[in-house]
Amino acid sequence: MTTPHVRSPLALSLPKLTSISGVRMSGVEANIRYSGRTDLMLVEFAPGTTAAGVFTRNLCPGAPIPWCRQALESTPHARALLVNSGNANVFTGRAGEEAVIACATETAEKLGCPVEDVFLASTGVIGETLPYQKILTALPSAIEALREDGWEDGARAIMTTDTFPKAVRRDVMIGDIPVRIQGIAKGSGMIAPDMATMLAYVATDATLPQNILQALLEEGVKTSFNAITVDSDTSTSDMLMLFATGQAAHAEITSLDDSNLVEFRKAMGELLHELAMLVIRDGEGITKLIRVNVQGAHDDESARKIALSIANSPLVKTAIAGEDANWGRVVMAVGKSGEPADRDRLSIAIGDHWVASKGSVQEHDVEALDNYMRQQEITITADMGLDSGCATIWTCDLTHGYIDINGSYRS
Amino acid sequence: MTTPHVRSPLALSLPKLTSISGVRMSGVEANIRYSGRTDLMLVEFAPGTTAAGVFTRNLCPGAPIPWCRQALESTPHARALLVNSGNANVFTGRAGEEAVIACATETAEKLGCPVEDVFLASTGVIGETLPYQKILTALPSAIEALREDGWEDGARAIMTTDTFPKAVRRDVMIGDIPVRIQGIAKGSGMIAPDMATMLAYVATDATLPQNILQALLEEGVKTSFNAITVDSDTSTSDMLMLFATGQAAHAEITSLDDSNLVEFRKAMGELLHELAMLVIRDGEGITKLIRVNVQGAHDDESARKIALSIANSPLVKTAIAGEDANWGRVVMAVGKSGEPADRDRLSIAIGDHWVASKGSVQEHDVEALDNYMRQQEITITADMGLDSGCATIWTCDLTHGYIDINGSYRS
Repeated sequence: MTTPHVRSPLALSLPKLTSISGVRMSGVEANIRYSGRTDLMLVEFAPGTTAAGVFTRNLCPGAPIPWCRQALESTPHARALLVNSGNANVFTGRAGEEAVIACATETAEKLGCPVEDVFLASTGVIGETLPYQKILTALPSAIEALREDGWEDGARAIMTTDTFPKAVRRDVMIGDIPVRIQGIAKGSGMIAPDMATMLAYVATDATLPQNILQALLEEGVKTSFNAITVDSDTSTSDMLMLFATGQAAHAEITSLDDSNLVEFRKAMGELLHELAMLVIRDGEGITKLIRVNVQGAHDDESARKIALSIANSPLVKTAIAGEDANWGRVVMAVGKSGEPADRDRLSIAIGDHWVASKGSVQEHDVEALDNYMRQQEITITADMGLDSGCATIWTCDLTHGYIDINGSYRS
Repeated sequence: MTTPHVRSPLALSLPKLTSISGVRMSGVEANIRYSGRTDLMLVEFAPGTTAAGVFTRNLCPGAPIPWCRQALESTPHARALLVNSGNANVFTGRAGEEAVIACATETAEKLGCPVEDVFLASTGVIGETLPYQKILTALPSAIEALREDGWEDGARAIMTTDTFPKAVRRDVMIGDIPVRIQGIAKGSGMIAPDMATMLAYVATDATLPQNILQALLEEGVKTSFNAITVDSDTSTSDMLMLFATGQAAHAEITSLDDSNLVEFRKAMGELLHELAMLVIRDGEGITKLIRVNVQGAHDDESARKIALSIANSPLVKTAIAGEDANWGRVVMAVGKSGEPADRDRLSIAIGDHWVASKGSVQEHDVEALDNYMRQQEITITADMGLDSGCATIWTCDLTHGYIDINGSYRS
């Protein structure tokens, strides 16, 4: 295995992490596939913690995905989250389901909670039977290591081809009570080289019923994890979960539109967006972060499809990698999306430079544009000139690094 | 411009070309963007030649595309085809339309035919005004150079990043009369680095009304040019045209199902398929030809979408490049297609090696599979186990060569 794990040039350092009252976390070595590093994260939540989640739409999901979906349907509560790296437990048939049941049962017994309050995830190689005995063996030490300040340990234990650990925090008020939100994520591509999966977990000490938590999550995911793409490939194990421990004694929240929730809601949206940006910043082989804005489209959904067509175009992504303001490829990507478009109304900007306007090339400062292309963050804007639909998608460029990571691997 | 043009390792030599009665062809230097090579192809067809065509579905097409569509609607006949390389005449506004009209008008005058009998295409850089005066200047020499055996000259003049010229021929019978079919194509990716476009032109001396010709084309394109993908990007100028000069004195054909047409119809299908395969064999950066079979799907259309999801997956394509039988990525690509799938019925083969069966890994000969992965042509089969839908898509692997060609370019 020659996969290089050079730290992403767009990596960000971990922020100063805090603790969230009602959350204890650990990361230990279970030797599932890796050795000499932690590969098992355990999180324990205080009784009464509510949970919400969104999961991959891939129709061949890993065994933990249906488990989590069912658990969320049967109870609003969460008491534990157990995540291993190194093996995705995907396409493992009955053995995969047995592993899930065994891990959840053992965790529930050891922590003294109902089995449906235990959430699970696995990330790593696809198609190999998960050696779950190793997880059961490591479980006691994971429980022993649980600490309120164990967040960094957790963030590191779930990494696969990630080149840096990812976390974001926010401190906000609900009414006059201070509340904290903190989240961790892993992912280095929608799916990494055999080492599948984007995972993100966010916890808060706020006191929120499950329906509000789920609504906050579904609102926030639109402009964060559902607005990023590395390579258009959708993992079999993607999952984003949100936990509220109910330790903060603020006034009861019964509606998403509660005026006391305004600041929290905004902060949650920002935190999810920043977590998603950390995943893109660790996109396989990334040298540039690309923001694709589509405006003036028929409607928002049409704008989103056009933005994804641009963001997933190998030709656009290789052009950006080559620091070439190749707007002809953007035109191509707009046209191939199949969405309403009129060449003679279409305008395209790279950064602030409008290179094409209403169907033909526009005079622009070539030297300034060349300088702009050398930056690490590039914005492409397509104005369809039709109506008011708009959308933004973030992606990274397509480089030799991506080929190295994904083509030089041996399963 | 550092674009490498190393000859594709999967290139095939030109077959021994023939002439088609009623077709004269030439390739000359117009110095549109290149120098020291031919970049203008002219084809003259005998009076009475019928034409059929299929064109890109990209909604931002180049200026020649609507011209050809309108010409085909207004007349069943073709007398000339003029194609330049070096400039795609795409996203060039009014100037682009003027160039088309000027070129068609001049060609019609010089050859003494109606202007709507002149077909045009341009392939090359997007967004630059086509210097069509250079085409008009070169037109007399192109006319003078017209020859019945000018096919190779034509095939070379339309090349852009192609690393070899592409042609296929067939000799068949319609009834007891011998008939010839010969076609040329260019393309090195659905769209090449700024040098856009897949073009293919096929001529026969058969005597066929336009509706039969169009039906033959639409039938043949399904399993040829619409069954290949290099990088999922759809050019703004793709076009496939078929011309029948009516020089062969066979019995009249009034139906696609005419028993006299059986051999011709089969040969046409094969020729189109072989032409399309030549384009894939010149796919940018190709080291391996990949055939994706999907069977047992809900229906044929569902099978086609699943096959395209696999064939366009960067992770599948990089795995094949790395000679890794990474079937987990095939599972991922099946699942992300959104088409009906049941993990526990899904089986996957690489070559003849069934590596996964009904939802879990299957024992297989790892050494034999490793040897298979070193071949130049790789077949992936996904059996959905649901119903009888099937489809085949051809593609190439994704390599450093693709990044070199598309990322190291300067527009």
